[in-house]
Amino acid sequence: MNMTLGRLKVAFLGPRASFSHQAAAESFGRTSAELLPHITFADAFSALQQQEVDYAVIPCENSTNGSVVQTLDLLADRNDLYKDVKVCGEYYLTVHHCLLVRKGSYPSGWEGYDGSITKLYTHPQAWGQCELLLSKYFKGVERQDVSSTSKGAEIVSKEMEERSAAIASRFAADFHGVDVLKENIEDRADNTTRFLILRNMRAERAAQLELEQPATAVTTHKTLISFAIDHSLPGALANALLIFKAHGLNLTSINTRPSLKRAWQYIFFVECGRTPSDENRDAVIKALNDLRHVTEFCRDLGTWKDQLGARI
Amino acid sequence: MNMTLGRLKVAFLGPRASFSHQAAAESFGRTSAELLPHITFADAFSALQQQEVDYAVIPCENSTNGSVVQTLDLLADRNDLYKDVKVCGEYYLTVHHCLLVRKGSYPSGWEGYDGSITKLYTHPQAWGQCELLLSKYFKGVERQDVSSTSKGAEIVSKEMEERSAAIASRFAADFHGVDVLKENIEDRADNTTRFLILRNMRAERAAQLELEQPATAVTTHKTLISFAIDHSLPGALANALLIFKAHGLNLTSINTRPSLKRAWQYIFFVECGRTPSDENRDAVIKALNDLRHVTEFCRDLGTWKDQLGARI
Repeated sequence: MNMTLGRLKVAFLGPRASFSHQAAAESFGRTSAELLPHITFADAFSALQQQEVDYAVIPCENSTNGSVVQTLDLLADRNDLYKDVKVCGEYYLTVHHCLLVRKGSYPSGWEGYDGSITKLYTHPQAWGQCELLLSKYFKGVERQDVSSTSKGAEIVSKEMEERSAAIASRFAADFHGVDVLKENIEDRADNTTRFLILRNMRAERAAQLELEQPATAVTTHKTLISFAIDHSLPGALANALLIFKAHGLNLTSINTRPSLKRAWQYIFFVECGRTPSDENRDAVIKALNDLRHVTEFCRDLGTWKDQLGARI
Repeated sequence: MNMTLGRLKVAFLGPRASFSHQAAAESFGRTSAELLPHITFADAFSALQQQEVDYAVIPCENSTNGSVVQTLDLLADRNDLYKDVKVCGEYYLTVHHCLLVRKGSYPSGWEGYDGSITKLYTHPQAWGQCELLLSKYFKGVERQDVSSTSKGAEIVSKEMEERSAAIASRFAADFHGVDVLKENIEDRADNTTRFLILRNMRAERAAQLELEQPATAVTTHKTLISFAIDHSLPGALANALLIFKAHGLNLTSINTRPSLKRAWQYIFFVECGRTPSDENRDAVIKALNDLRHVTEFCRDLGTWKDQLGARI
């Protein structure tokens, strides 16, 4: 089913004003794309496979917490539900938290803060990311878990009785119309989430748009390949990994998830990079051909331009 | 500090009657070991490093859910807190869930069950593992999350007013003195958790005990090695992995966690196996020597006898 022409549609994870929403807005900011919230990872993958959207922006890894297993499990695609979904880009978003309060409730700002906040809202993971500020200024203040940082900002925007605050992004503050009382309250300044930009390889409209990602000094192309091996054969995994080296593909990360076919058998996700040249133009195709001989299955999950180089 | 002689002490994770408790009891059943609950992963590691216990039994991987990142993060030992902790064994525990009720409350058993249970307790993860039974017999019944399956069994053992049931192990049923109304209610019969048995390499008493693990047809020795590489060097990861093959060590699993030193740098956990022979007697030592030349650090996290072969 081809979509009728019109505005580009991009799925993101979570409620509106989530970090995925921000990543989608920043990635597709120069287009007139319509950004659409999807509550679960599977919803976003499914919408993309069904061509209800052209792209999806999904978190895959955090520099502090590691891989996002929900994303790996969907990319594993054990039941062939998402066979047209591929990675076509990536986006790095540094996670900055702010202390948010209802509009106008603290007119003199953080300098004039009088210690009157009695309740805090945020996602469970964010408490641990802002411990320094919380232990210094908010010791003993009631903490209420919410399903997303964006939800906390929304609650605070509507709260009329209590003196409450939320921990969320500036993006969420703008979206929900609340004030930033203090910004960059996170303990680690370098906490960054990497998002994958996925597209449906059969969608014609998506193929027309060349994602204008920032040029890097030396453009590295990254490729993601998944495969499974027969662990009863000694050396099978080493042989599979050797193939990347043989074709000049530099291994940059390896992840594994249970195959769920047999216990203690895995699906491997190998990310590899190359600086494009005439010699290695067909390196990925050749590597995949070789991998087919030593793996139970292997799948090309897409190639895109490395964006990490652009940030350093 | 050496411990005075006495009963062997074994730390396990969780409250009493947890799956870790069961794994510890089954691993050390033929000894007179004292099994001691530790609520957090870090508590158990710390008790072992401080030689408050001789061994610790910690989950490291589940056949359905994958790796246990808390365990990997402690084995990563980024702050050199647990430098004497090593793996000395493993134990595979198949996860069987039972429907548990207060002693004597359903004398005619599951055959005579009248549909009168109005509330269910278990750990959030267990609901999803028993969906078939729950959707058939307990549709619409109130579900209450608890911090552990064992806790659910404990609550049910004390509940006098309501008709409630818990989903937990037979081990937890015996421990808390409740009845098993129906056993093996899990959807997947093969859901298995692998536990690592850790010991402090400096503890003399622990060293005296040879863990009598079941003999396997062909005994494979497994070794766990952690290392970090400089990702700016192309081929660095492939070169490190090649060393295992060069010394006849068969790669059986690879896991990664963020290094937390620099974003997008990883600590790798490589598990490798060998069937001991005269030729490969020093394979691990030689591999570690070679790894030191191509890694930023590498660490031998221990060698033990493969127990998976014994189960198949």
